[in-house]
Amino acid sequence: MADILHRIGVERSSPERVYEALTTLDGLSGWWTEKTSGETGPGGVIEFRFGPGGIDMKVAELEPGRLVRWEVVGGPPEWIGTTVRWDLRQDGDYTIVLFSHEGWREPVEFMHHCSTKWATFLMSLKQLLETGEGAPDPRDVKISDWH
Amino acid sequence: MADILHRIGVERSSPERVYEALTTLDGLSGWWTEKTSGETGPGGVIEFRFGPGGIDMKVAELEPGRLVRWEVVGGPPEWIGTTVRWDLRQDGDYTIVLFSHEGWREPVEFMHHCSTKWATFLMSLKQLLETGEGAPDPRDVKISDWH
Repeated sequence: MADILHRIGVERSSPERVYEALTTLDGLSGWWTEKTSGETGPGGVIEFRFGPGGIDMKVAELEPGRLVRWEVVGGPPEWIGTTVRWDLRQDGDYTIVLFSHEGWREPVEFMHHCSTKWATFLMSLKQLLETGEGAPDPRDVKISDWH
Repeated sequence: MADILHRIGVERSSPERVYEALTTLDGLSGWWTEKTSGETGPGGVIEFRFGPGGIDMKVAELEPGRLVRWEVVGGPPEWIGTTVRWDLRQDGDYTIVLFSHEGWREPVEFMHHCSTKWATFLMSLKQLLETGEGAPDPRDVKISDWH
């Protein structure tokens, strides 16, 4: 098993505001993909759609201002059964976001791609909260031939 | 053991040009840190200096246009004994860079930070090769309170 890990710090924000960007359709569509729909409450399934395909996340755990955990129930075969976890806390002037996308069966080349791509989407989340404008798909930062 | 993985694709470049950016002081100082010195040949030690500290990399393996491997011989305690590996190849219009920073003892919070930070430096490498100008320290993209 292998995990993708990331950490960012968001200035001039709060764990509550970051939590909102992770748990509302309006927030999620502001940094990950404009095509976000579905149910964001506990047990709900959120549908994220991108140019070539999509990902369905089941909301597995929610602790307001502290934790969001999703289970991947639809998407690329390598993603099925993996989980995405967001831990939030305030440290001085920064809201710290610890991110992990856990449980990859193999460290395949696609996992390398997703790791870098997650980093750019985390920077998009930071930018959304700090400036009011993120870079969600299709306006996302392109990193390679795999987009 | 845990690994940081990334993948980028560089347009309008070649494995030879990316290799050069990883194996010359001029190249390395254009995307990672302006304060780069030392010996870049096989068995040499390259010294990378940043605001708060530095990293010393021993050049463990070199295959022109294909592979660069470094062993961390100086730097933060969590980095000592880890290795950094760059695999290069051409795929159509893109030079594909597969990156791994391997052998972390524990997935500590600092590893989360380094993973995101490596992603921004890989994007700096891509930018350097595509536009002639990267974002090395101290002009690097800041991601948090840990810079």
